[in-house]
Amino acid sequence: MAEEQTKVEPEPAEKAPAKPERTTQRRPARKDAAGNVVFIGIKPVMNYVLAVITQFNEGNGEVVLKARGRAISRAVDVAEITRHRFLKELVVKDIKIGTEEVTGDRGTSNVSTVEVTLVKGA
Amino acid sequence: MAEEQTKVEPEPAEKAPAKPERTTQRRPARKDAAGNVVFIGIKPVMNYVLAVITQFNEGNGEVVLKARGRAISRAVDVAEITRHRFLKELVVKDIKIGTEEVTGDRGTSNVSTVEVTLVKGA
Repeated sequence: MAEEQTKVEPEPAEKAPAKPERTTQRRPARKDAAGNVVFIGIKPVMNYVLAVITQFNEGNGEVVLKARGRAISRAVDVAEITRHRFLKELVVKDIKIGTEEVTGDRGTSNVSTVEVTLVKGA
Repeated sequence: MAEEQTKVEPEPAEKAPAKPERTTQRRPARKDAAGNVVFIGIKPVMNYVLAVITQFNEGNGEVVLKARGRAISRAVDVAEITRHRFLKELVVKDIKIGTEEVTGDRGTSNVSTVEVTLVKGA
C-alpha cells in the first residue's frame, strides 16, 4: 500500500518516449541520500499529499516533489497542503526550476519542470 | 506601451473581492529596491515574457514574477523562456511558495502562490 502510493506516475500526456537519460526518474523512489521522490501528475492533490506523508512516516528526512508542465501548480499545492495541514514541522529546503525537451506526437517541445525539496525542520 | 505591459492583471477568476491587505499587489509595478513585479495571469506566456524583458531593458536589475493557482506553471514557463531564449544572463535568485486565502463566490478557499525572482547575473 505504502509502496504503491510512493511511485506516482507522471501524467501520460507528458511522457517522453525517447529520452533514455530520463528513465532513471521513472524508477520507484529510492531511499538514498538524495531522499525520496514523488512525481506529481494528474491525480487528485490528496493522493500526492498522502504519498509525501507516507515517505516521512517511513523515516525519510527529505522528500522531493517533481512535476512538469501544468502539474507544476499541483506540486506547489501538495507542498503547501502537506506542510500547513499535516506535517507542520516541514520546511521548504529548496525549489528548482528547469526545462526539459519532450518528444511527443508533434515533434520536440520544451516543458518546464520544478523540484520542491521538503525536509523536516529542526 | 511599456508601462501597459508592465502592469499585467491577474486572471479574473482569481481576484479576491474582499482582502484589503492584498490591494497593494494590484498597484502598477514600482521601481523600488524590491524590484518590479509582473503578475502572471491567463494571458499567453509571451505577453509576460515581453513584460519581463521590458522591465530589464528599462534598467531594473531585478524582476519578481508572481502567480497564483493554475497560473503558477505559467510563471515558471515565463522565467524559463525569458532566461533561455532572450536574456541569457538572467539568474533565478529566489523562488518562494506560499498560500493565500481567497474569498470567492463559494466562500473562502486557499490558493497556492509563487514568487520567482529573476536578476541579471554577474
